[in-house]
Order: sequence, then C-alpha cells, then structure tokens
Amino acid sequence: MEHLNPKPFFRKQKFDLASLFNSLRNGDISSLSRAITLIESTNQNDLEQAGKLLQLALPYSGKSFRLGITGVPGVGKSTFIEALGQHSIRSGKKVAVLAIDPSSSITKGSILGDKTRMEELVKSDQAFIRPSPAGETLGGVARKTREAIILCEAAGFDFIIIETVGVGQSETAVHSMTDFFLLLKLAGAGDNLQGIKRGIMEMADTVVINKADGENLKAAKHARQEFKNALHILPSKQHKQEVKVMMCSGLNDDGVLEVFDLINEYHQHVQQSGYFNSKREQQDIYWLKNTIDDKLKALFYNQSAVADSYQVYVDKVISKEMTPYQAADQLINLYQRSI
Amino acid sequence: MEHLNPKPFFRKQKFDLASLFNSLRNGDISSLSRAITLIESTNQNDLEQAGKLLQLALPYSGKSFRLGITGVPGVGKSTFIEALGQHSIRSGKKVAVLAIDPSSSITKGSILGDKTRMEELVKSDQAFIRPSPAGETLGGVARKTREAIILCEAAGFDFIIIETVGVGQSETAVHSMTDFFLLLKLAGAGDNLQGIKRGIMEMADTVVINKADGENLKAAKHARQEFKNALHILPSKQHKQEVKVMMCSGLNDDGVLEVFDLINEYHQHVQQSGYFNSKREQQDIYWLKNTIDDKLKALFYNQSAVADSYQVYVDKVISKEMTPYQAADQLINLYQRSI
Repeated sequence: MEHLNPKPFFRKQKFDLASLFNSLRNGDISSLSRAITLIESTNQNDLEQAGKLLQLALPYSGKSFRLGITGVPGVGKSTFIEALGQHSIRSGKKVAVLAIDPSSSITKGSILGDKTRMEELVKSDQAFIRPSPAGETLGGVARKTREAIILCEAAGFDFIIIETVGVGQSETAVHSMTDFFLLLKLAGAGDNLQGIKRGIMEMADTVVINKADGENLKAAKHARQEFKNALHILPSKQHKQEVKVMMCSGLNDDGVLEVFDLINEYHQHVQQSGYFNSKREQQDIYWLKNTIDDKLKALFYNQSAVADSYQVYVDKVISKEMTPYQAADQLINLYQRSI
Repeated sequence: MEHLNPKPFFRKQKFDLASLFNSLRNGDISSLSRAITLIESTNQNDLEQAGKLLQLALPYSGKSFRLGITGVPGVGKSTFIEALGQHSIRSGKKVAVLAIDPSSSITKGSILGDKTRMEELVKSDQAFIRPSPAGETLGGVARKTREAIILCEAAGFDFIIIETVGVGQSETAVHSMTDFFLLLKLAGAGDNLQGIKRGIMEMADTVVINKADGENLKAAKHARQEFKNALHILPSKQHKQEVKVMMCSGLNDDGVLEVFDLINEYHQHVQQSGYFNSKREQQDIYWLKNTIDDKLKALFYNQSAVADSYQVYVDKVISKEMTPYQAADQLINLYQRSI
C-alpha cells in the first residue's frame, strides 16, 4: 500500500525547478531521470512541483515519433528494441525506451526496461531507458508514462519506444499514446499464434514475426501467411496504410532495418496527410475523457452510501427483484442524496 | 425531439395493471403488445406503471434462449429469420423477434422487424414480431429492448431473436443481452468481406454465409475458408465451443435447420457447464454498471458549470497549455464545487 503522503523525494537537496528544467532542456540525462522520479512521486508537494515542471515542458513536447511495441515475455522484445534503437541512433535520432507494466508493484519495480537487457543501447549517450513506473492501477501507470513522454520530448528525444507485456488492458493504453503500434510475435513454441489476445490484431499497424532464423524460418513463414489471411478481413486502418506482416531476427539484426524504414515511411505519409496531428489531438481528448470517467467512477463507488449498498443492489438484480436499470436508478438517487 | 412529458398512452381506457399482467402471463399477444408500448412510453406516469409491470414480470423471465443476429442490410436477415423461426415453432418453441436500431427516429420508426417482411412467421400465433423502439440514444433503445425481452419471456416466449443492422455500437449492445451471437454474411457483391466491422469477429459465436445458392455457391465456399483462416488466430471463446462457419440459403431453407441444431447443441452444452447462468449474471452486472456510467457522465457533462467550460479546457489541452490529466483534474474540481 502507498502511504498517504510519503516524504518528498527531493527533501535532501535544495530543489530548484527552473534549473532542473533548464538542464533537462539541454538534454542532461540525469536531470531527465530526476524529473521523471518527481512525476512518479506520491508526495503531494512533489506532485505540485511535477505539475509546474510539466507545464514548462509541454510547449517543447510532441515533436517525437512514438512507437508502441507489445509482445509476450520470451518474444525477444529487448533484443528487437536493442537492434531497432541502434538503427535509430545511426539515423541521427535520440531514443527513449519507456515501459508500461501495471503488474509491477510499488516495491519490486518492473522487469520491463531492465537496463541490463539492452547492453549496447544503455552505453549510448543518445539513448535513455527507464523501467515502468510502479502503480496500483493501469490509469495511474499510464498517466505517469504519458507525462514521462512529455519530459523525454522536452529533453530532445525524438524516437520514443513504449513497450508492454500486455497485462490487462495495457495494450489499449499503449496504443492510445503512440503513433504506431507494433505487434511482435513468435512462430513456434514460445508464443501461441492461436488465440491472440482480444482486440490486438485490430490495433496493430504492423505485425513482426521475430526469431525468424535457423530452424524457425519455416514456421515463421507459415505464421506470416496466417496473419496475412486474418488481416485480410479485418477493418482497414484509418490511416489507409496497409498493415504489413514482416519477419525479422532481432538477434542477427536481420530485417530490423526494414521495420525501421517502414516506420519512417509511415511517419512521412501520415505527416503529409495530416493524420499524424489529428490522431495526436484525438488521443489527448481520449485521455481527457478517460481520466474524467475514471474520476467520476471513483467518486461514485467510493462514496460511503454507495459502497455500503452496492452489493445489496447487485444481489437484488441477480435474484430478479429488480432490473439492472431500476437498480442503477436507485443507486444514482442514493449517490445524489448523499453528496 | 421528445416532449418532456407527453400524454399518457393509456389515457383513453381504464388502465388495470394486474389484469394486463394476467392476460400477458396467459400469452395474450395483444396484451404483450400493449405492455411493450407502455415501457416505450415517455410519459412519467406510464413509466411508473411500466416499472411495476416489470417487477411483476421479472420472476417469470429468464427462461428463454436469446439469439442475437447481425448483418448489413441486404444480407437477407428477414428471410433467414423467417426460416429459422419456422424451424423453432416446429420444434415446439414460441418465437419473439425484436430489433435494435438506434437510427430509427421518434417519428419514422424502424424498418427492422417490419412485419410484412416475415409473411409466414407473422401468421403464426406462436410468433411475435416487434420493430425497434424509437429513441435518441443507443442506451435508451437497448434498455427498452431488454425490458421487452423480460415481458416476452413472462408471456411464454422461449426463443427470442434480437436483430440489428449494426449501426454505431448496436452489435455490442445485442451481444451483451443475448446468449448466442450470430453473424450473417454474404459472399459477393452485396456485402464486403474485407473490412468487417471492428470487434464483430471476436463477438461471433458462429458465422453464417447466407445466399449460398446458385451462382453464389462458389464465392460462399471461398468466403467460408477466409473466415475459418481468420477465426483460427482469434481468441478462443469463454464457452470453449468452436466458432463454426456455416453456409445456408435462407430463401431455399437450405442449411437453416443445421444452424438451428447448432444453436440447440450450444444451449444444452452451456446449460450443463453452468456457463449459461454465469453469463446471464455477468450481463446483468454489465448493464447495471453501464447504466451507472452513462448516468454519471450525463450528470457531469450536463452540469452547467462543466458544459460552459468543457470546450475551453479541450482547447487548452490541444494548445499544450495543460496536460489532459491537469484539465480533467480541474474540470472535476469545478464539477464538485458546483454540485
């Protein structure tokens, strides 16, 4: 459990928001790291400072390309991101790797974004790698990750990778904060092509079959054809670009440059068509409404009169004493009387 | 636009709720029809009577099998339902056909469930056909349809078909109020197999290719294979039953009995496994929560302080003056201060 108001993170040092922001703007990685720690704090005073910092950073944000990557553990996400990040740096881009993993508890942190798994990337001063923020709810973790994106962009990172293992609704969250959503899959024993998670196929802007090397190559080709068949009858994307199914070997850096090129072509295309900016605006409004919904529900379900009676009404619905609508009407009346 | 409180529907006749309910329970179709008109009323006094009627009917509800059918206009839904309904009546079941079409306005009513399109079914005293209730929102139309299901069940109808043309989110609504969801498709010119609507494939308990007759047969077989390929990599259903792709000709009544048999086998299977009842409970709780959500949002967005300021905050988010979370925080504060 989180403390109600833990000690502020920056209590030991004199804290100067303006100078922190200035060094962050100059691309100083340790300042960026400290700034993200500030937005992850649960101390009320820290959060006020974090809010001010975000407002300073906001005008400088938004200029990166945001890439979402999902895939189950064992699919080779770290190796793939390591290779993709290298190509990105070689093309002159600064790369930030963030993660969303709502299963990471407040104490143990996340295995995602573990620096030791991206040996080459972590050595580069053009790369920044940060594990998933801890948090009790996906909403909280997603908020902190989106705020971290703003800070990374203000610090000059122009290629932001958000990865997830896809716990709960985390893919939907990543999809809703990125410009391009990449589904990483594996043919063969490590990943189950049958029974792919609900809704994922329709979110993917491209499917990449990883570990397409050696003895796996035949199975990978078969998997590619299966995905092509399935994508054929799914709705075409709003951006009108074909959803390609690609193969690569992250380990051998084989086919990864082709994925990087595809992403860049997409970026150019949607910037010219205007879809890039309109999607970003839609995403901002989505997060505004989504946050309002979450807060309205929290106010309702945490109100003591509602909390005390909710299960009683559920039981009345199950036992056919009243319809779900009648129960909802009465609970809402109870809520309004008790505000 | 609806009037705030129009004249009550039953103003011309002395209205006796108990006797209406009794004749409804005896299976009197004109009483069932009047009862549904009562729940569709927008008059406050009628709605109070409707609430009482529903509470009388509730204990006798729930014993039917509820079948959802979706398909675009032209796919042959009416002809298919006509044939399926005949098989159902022959097996000793009473059939009710309801519809969900949120696009039907208050004045023009719905073309769905048009009695003239189901010539044989409408002649049978074992069948009841009712067009979609009019309504401004899907939530309102869905509520009235779910209440009509309760009344039909109390009147002894044990096979309820809910059809939709799939406007907006209406398939999700139908899926959430039925035991089995059937996607009707067409191979060839009348229906586009490519670009099937988002999320539909994952909701379907079976896919039926209609008009698989004459020159269409070859295209239908090809479509069946395409669907099999696509379903192969979708998540397996909670009920563990395979999602079959079938072909039929509603016009020639060819293959329709096989669909009816499949539905009955499914019904037996899920009743034995306990899934039937647990899904019904989940659906009731879904509608309870969904109605609460809708009402909370209506209270929020219709509050004058919020309504006056909402667009201002959207603009601040778009112009990067504040993050979506900061805007949501401030709007929620505004809402709470103004309650």
